[in-house]
Amino acid sequence: MLAQRLIERKRDGGRLEPGEWRALTLAYASGYVPDYQMAAFLMACFLRGLDRDETSALTEAMLNSGQRLQLADLGVPRVDKHSTGGVGDKVSLVLAPLIASLGVAVPMMSGRGLGHTGGTLDKLESIPGFRTNLTLSEARAQLASIGCALMGQTSEIAPADRKMYALRDATSTVESVPLIAASIMSKKLAEDLTGLVLDIKRGSGAFLPQLERDLELAETMIRLGTDHGCPVTALITAMDRPLGRACGNALEVEEAILTLKGEGPPDLLEITYSLGAEMLLIADAAASTDDARRQMEKAIGTGKAAERLEAIIEAQGGNPGVVEDPAVLPQAAECELYMSPRRGFVARVEPRAVGRGIIALGGGRTKIEDLIDPSVGFVITARPGDWVELGEPLATIFARDRAGVDSGRQALRQAIAIADEADPPLPLVSHRVSSTGVEVVPRP
Amino acid sequence: MLAQRLIERKRDGGRLEPGEWRALTLAYASGYVPDYQMAAFLMACFLRGLDRDETSALTEAMLNSGQRLQLADLGVPRVDKHSTGGVGDKVSLVLAPLIASLGVAVPMMSGRGLGHTGGTLDKLESIPGFRTNLTLSEARAQLASIGCALMGQTSEIAPADRKMYALRDATSTVESVPLIAASIMSKKLAEDLTGLVLDIKRGSGAFLPQLERDLELAETMIRLGTDHGCPVTALITAMDRPLGRACGNALEVEEAILTLKGEGPPDLLEITYSLGAEMLLIADAAASTDDARRQMEKAIGTGKAAERLEAIIEAQGGNPGVVEDPAVLPQAAECELYMSPRRGFVARVEPRAVGRGIIALGGGRTKIEDLIDPSVGFVITARPGDWVELGEPLATIFARDRAGVDSGRQALRQAIAIADEADPPLPLVSHRVSSTGVEVVPRP
Repeated sequence: MLAQRLIERKRDGGRLEPGEWRALTLAYASGYVPDYQMAAFLMACFLRGLDRDETSALTEAMLNSGQRLQLADLGVPRVDKHSTGGVGDKVSLVLAPLIASLGVAVPMMSGRGLGHTGGTLDKLESIPGFRTNLTLSEARAQLASIGCALMGQTSEIAPADRKMYALRDATSTVESVPLIAASIMSKKLAEDLTGLVLDIKRGSGAFLPQLERDLELAETMIRLGTDHGCPVTALITAMDRPLGRACGNALEVEEAILTLKGEGPPDLLEITYSLGAEMLLIADAAASTDDARRQMEKAIGTGKAAERLEAIIEAQGGNPGVVEDPAVLPQAAECELYMSPRRGFVARVEPRAVGRGIIALGGGRTKIEDLIDPSVGFVITARPGDWVELGEPLATIFARDRAGVDSGRQALRQAIAIADEADPPLPLVSHRVSSTGVEVVPRP
Repeated sequence: MLAQRLIERKRDGGRLEPGEWRALTLAYASGYVPDYQMAAFLMACFLRGLDRDETSALTEAMLNSGQRLQLADLGVPRVDKHSTGGVGDKVSLVLAPLIASLGVAVPMMSGRGLGHTGGTLDKLESIPGFRTNLTLSEARAQLASIGCALMGQTSEIAPADRKMYALRDATSTVESVPLIAASIMSKKLAEDLTGLVLDIKRGSGAFLPQLERDLELAETMIRLGTDHGCPVTALITAMDRPLGRACGNALEVEEAILTLKGEGPPDLLEITYSLGAEMLLIADAAASTDDARRQMEKAIGTGKAAERLEAIIEAQGGNPGVVEDPAVLPQAAECELYMSPRRGFVARVEPRAVGRGIIALGGGRTKIEDLIDPSVGFVITARPGDWVELGEPLATIFARDRAGVDSGRQALRQAIAIADEADPPLPLVSHRVSSTGVEVVPRP
């Protein structure tokens, strides 16, 4: 009866009180409210929206459905970075050890590949032995000893969100700003952070392609942070093309390691520095953006950041030798260059087509239970705006077998458009959003 | 995957093609699409609406999920009447034998009590022995022999509608005009009718209280009838107060029998004649409304209509003696008058409060599996607009025990308002809607 009344109210554009959000969320988590009632309710939420107080109450209800880390006694600032997801986005692998090496603890809870996008957990697990299913007490101990833990959402964290997210995925109710914001923040607030930095992707390869909705999401999460005593800063960044060159699990780990050694592609380094500066600023660990940059450049230059990654990999059961020699990562049996079919400008490298191509190669999932092959993927050297000649190499395909190479070639034909003209790509970092408002970031 | 794509499209305000309605409906009926996906889809339908072609395709998909009656070879017109439901609405019990006695076959498929409203099946089953679960072949045989069958929706008829209706009831997606229209028409079209008359209730006790939505429902069902070769006429009638005096299963059967003998309350007789005239006109069995009225008055005056009810009861296993002597119906152990608490005008007799009072007495359901006591209910003699003195009897309470009498008294205190002034009640029959448009019916 309770559920029906609440569905009806939301359906008719009304609002729920905090106690009602709490009751409904717990009743769903415990199985008292069945999936079909929650599905109807979520669709009503999707179409009618949630106001600020409702979004806050839902976040809190999901947060309180589980446990949380207790980190205040570590005596250091704790900052996480969350990305809304994209293709080639291996920033977390670079940023977490880099920032931890600068005295800020990074309790990073990540996800798996979803739709056309990759997931940090899948990437980490391509390192032989690496274990992401840390318990909360393991994570706490590791944060105390080496200042970083790279983990999945355990069953202890926000179980109501876990269950609701799976239902949203099956009922086409994912792309709702308040539901996305509440889902992310219920997990992030469980990390007992002193600050959070968001990387909100815009453009054709993002879950929310339109800038307007990205800004709305940023503002919603910033308000949720404010409501719960966790300052949040967001950068709006480009996902109209893949980030960096490597797309695919082990390939991205290798590129992240190169970047930690100062040899990464410029766009990946630039986004890492932009987000890292926000993390250091929100942690009060840098005096200015320039100071933050200098600290990060030094940590990379001296090898301190790469050493911290070794320490994390060792603590989580992985083979730390991978940092010295990325060849210990799984290697694809076949690799082949992909050449430009004509001369012209690179007009487009479409992330969704690349992401679907990785899935077709066996490097991503179509069902939650699918096993993935970490070795496959693409290294795409062509960048939008480049001039290329007929037959010039644009990318390398890494596949399990010849059939894989063929499917990879097909995917790249879809993904990479060569034309007589090319529109300029989106600026890498276009907006900075904080509790004081939205600033347009000047092009470097 | 199919379901998700279709949910997404409807969520975003798009439309489904007939083949997609068919596929989704059958996939749901067969269990391939789970309840939670259908629940999200139905909420999207509720909020986004269905266009004419979509409503028609859904109706046809639900109709084709089951069997239908084949009655063309009976050689007579077949007309049913459907009411959107109310309190004290025993019109079907009068109308079906009356019209069948005039040479028009009435294959009448009815429902059970729902929410605050009563259901024809529950009323019929208060007649000792009466069996409503006819198979399609039993119904056909009975229509051939006595021109009428009073039955429930068998599992053979529109099983997809049955399943979807139960889900809508649990997920607050009932009150949608296209979904209501498709649900009703999928069952009615399975009766192989040559015409259908709708009694659409308006006012505070109706499922759709607002006239605007009632007219929309009428027009939607008329179009669905047109699309499937079944002419439909609708009357909009008053449900701002109970119809007739008796409210409660056996009490309503008794009042229906009295009405068939010419001794019913004027409002019930008036609505019966209005709907009956439409049935005879749509069946081409009367030359005019006046002719239809004369035929019906004669059938009642000569006892032919009451005899037809006896024949139906006998055919369906009930005790036909009830028509001669209604005392064979279950009798309540306690009955008590309810007196006016003050002098003044009867300002309101609220159907929802009366309906909830019947449920509290044990005469209705709160859960589908509840057993009901057919003997309990109210006979309410006070009509809105009447002048009453302090202590004047307004109603009689029929209950199982003294506690029931108390709860009945409480319900009537809520339901019947006495005040210094009374607004005029809604006209009994206010509008007539047919494929040629809407007419306002002049007050008699």
